[in-house]
Amino acid sequence: MPIVQIDMLEGRSLEQKREMVKKITAAIVETAKCPPEAVTIVLREAPTQHIAKAGILAADR
Amino acid sequence: MPIVQIDMLEGRSLEQKREMVKKITAAIVETAKCPPEAVTIVLREAPTQHIAKAGILAADR
Amino acid sequence: MPIVQIDMLEGRSLEQKREMVKKITAAIVETAKCPPEAVTIVLREAPTQHIAKAGILAADR
Amino acid sequence: MPIVQIDMLEGRSLEQKREMVKKITAAIVETAKCPPEAVTIVLREAPTQHIAKAGILAADR
Amino acid sequence: MPIVQIDMLEGRSLEQKREMVKKITAAIVETAKCPPEAVTIVLREAPTQHIAKAGILAADR
Amino acid sequence: MPIVQIDMLEGRSLEQKREMVKKITAAIVETAKCPPEAVTIVLREAPTQHIAKAGILAADR
Repeated sequence: MPIVQIDMLEGRSLEQKREMVKKITAAIVETAKCPPEAVTIVLREAPTQHIAKAGILAADR
Repeated sequence: MPIVQIDMLEGRSLEQKREMVKKITAAIVETAKCPPEAVTIVLREAPTQHIAKAGILAADR
Repeated sequence: MPIVQIDMLEGRSLEQKREMVKKITAAIVETAKCPPEAVTIVLREAPTQHIAKAGILAADR
Repeated sequence: MPIVQIDMLEGRSLEQKREMVKKITAAIVETAKCPPEAVTIVLREAPTQHIAKAGILAADR
Repeated sequence: MPIVQIDMLEGRSLEQKREMVKKITAAIVETAKCPPEAVTIVLREAPTQHIAKAGILAADR
Repeated sequence: MPIVQIDMLEGRSLEQKREMVKKITAAIVETAKCPPEAVTIVLREAPTQHIAKAGILAADR
């Protein structure tokens, strides 16, 4: 029962999200050998003020 | 110090969330044998575009 | 499709975990008005070296 | 900077994990239009005592 | 490659978040002995309806 | 009530973890203006087989 969580910057379209969960599920089904129904994915979008790398917010890059 | 995170579809009322955290905390206190003060819960709501099962967004079902 | 994650100190028995997921699921079904099959729970156990409050590890309390 | 977390039952081989992260990254790069270097994935394995659905541990199914 | 997730009540300013990720990254670099570029942080803000302690929502305290 | 989760490669000593949670808590207290008791941190260690960047496991780099 793989549970997938993805935190990413906001801005992707519904079509992009639709394709993303479809392809990620296929990748897991193929490699983990589980049925598609076992794969749950939750996407979470963050504004650029909320993701940082090397101590610097994406908003400040 | 149980830390509980719940990702769920948006749409529950304040009263539902109030009851949910009350009952989940009681369930943990009773079974994990810890004081209520030790239980922290964070709820996160997702739009139907952000939760998928079997590779299909809740928005598309 | 509520997804529940619980991080807690290690040490609970299988019977305690069994009761915990049963009661938490019941609490969510009752308050969120969703079917039991929609509730997924993942437990994660941490040693006392891995949980801290007020800047002090549980191992040092 | 997509951050991917996957909680799943233990038991997959190193080769399965290697293929899984490769294919998931490709799926995100293709759909989110970001460079591969921006994708970080963390896998977490759970024993059957630690994942539940419908209030029943995988260990009890 | 430390991945840091912080769930907190909403209400901090951009300047507070900027300082927070800067100081947390410095703390990790200093203690985990890794380069700053290896540290990724995601902040998530919750309304007072979404964080509970001891079974009571922050909104009700 | 900031809740901090850190996923990182295994291998840090108890002393490093002790200093890490102390300094991270201080960073949050200073920038978020909350009392130390409000800060909870959970550390999770991953083997090199379980963290990937750019589609490649840390174990394979």
